[in-house]
Amino acid sequence: MNPAPFEFYFDFSSPYGYFASTQIDALANEFGRTASWHPILLGPIFKQSGAKPVVDVALKGAYALRDFARTAELFDIPYAHPANFPIGTVAAARAMMWIESRHGPAKAITFARKAYHAFFVDGRDIGDTDVVITLGGDAGLDAGQLAEGMQDQAIKDALRKQVEEAMGKGVFGSPFIIVDGEPFWGFDRFDHIRRWLQRRYRQAPSAFTR
Amino acid sequence: MNPAPFEFYFDFSSPYGYFASTQIDALANEFGRTASWHPILLGPIFKQSGAKPVVDVALKGAYALRDFARTAELFDIPYAHPANFPIGTVAAARAMMWIESRHGPAKAITFARKAYHAFFVDGRDIGDTDVVITLGGDAGLDAGQLAEGMQDQAIKDALRKQVEEAMGKGVFGSPFIIVDGEPFWGFDRFDHIRRWLQRRYRQAPSAFTR
Repeated sequence: MNPAPFEFYFDFSSPYGYFASTQIDALANEFGRTASWHPILLGPIFKQSGAKPVVDVALKGAYALRDFARTAELFDIPYAHPANFPIGTVAAARAMMWIESRHGPAKAITFARKAYHAFFVDGRDIGDTDVVITLGGDAGLDAGQLAEGMQDQAIKDALRKQVEEAMGKGVFGSPFIIVDGEPFWGFDRFDHIRRWLQRRYRQAPSAFTR
Repeated sequence: MNPAPFEFYFDFSSPYGYFASTQIDALANEFGRTASWHPILLGPIFKQSGAKPVVDVALKGAYALRDFARTAELFDIPYAHPANFPIGTVAAARAMMWIESRHGPAKAITFARKAYHAFFVDGRDIGDTDVVITLGGDAGLDAGQLAEGMQDQAIKDALRKQVEEAMGKGVFGSPFIIVDGEPFWGFDRFDHIRRWLQRRYRQAPSAFTR
């Protein structure tokens, strides 16, 4: 058996997506699995679902800000809530799509980690195309090629298609993880994924990596 | 030190509130604490916040139904999604308020457990006043006194005041647990409460009950 990877969908402006990004590979690895990383855009998804960013929701917004910081602390994840939040993430998502298409998923994931860290730890505005290109350079990419690639119509189309396909699979938030067809929404569902896989295979996690 | 109880707020029509009700006392007990149970009404709270029942939200609704059943299964909690859902819970909440005022919190919690079980396991419509009164009888109460007590203006006022006070503390959903002033929303925050208390006191849970 060669099980499919966990499908990990995230928006670069999502705190819980960022938290998930720090642990998704380890979670998959517990079960001898890997994760495929797919940037999405909550903007068009929320447009269709009628949702809005949680920080803009009455009563819930103030709680969410507190929960972001507290969750980071309780799970030992470095976090500083960005001054400008939420942001548009089309530049970062296109950059990741281009990097994956040209240099493969490992390089794309390296970039994604750097982008999340830049936004949620260093407070850099990754909504800015120039910042995204600089981060690509930090990840060892040619800045000129990346800048050009992000404007490639094929990349723009591929991202739009990825968002549409995600919605077709029921993805409505970030992070969203699909494991063997089963959908899980939220960093707070990592423990559910663990329990679900253990029951599905009726084994302890250690059995998966032997 | 005689620490305050966990403040446990819940609506009788909330699946995650029901899940929480099956574990809140055990969670509090891990830390040598107790829980005070406070029924609230999401109706007036959602009216103020502009929220609506999750099952009525586009895309999220179908996922929520799946998550209710899956969460129950993964945490070994009996569950059958009620045919009529969500329901108004003012009768059940008033009954619990009256029972607590007349017979104390232990009896009120016994009733609350019976009401949740009736709705989420046996599929009985606890939105119906007669069903609520029958459940009170099952909990060993005088049905006539309970029926009368639920109509008592003082009980109606006490429930209204409890909902207003909850909102004043930032409660916007169910379950909502306040521990030493710190707010936690959702059954999926039980693990966060555990981590938060361990860090706050820098101790393993076992140290609390020695």
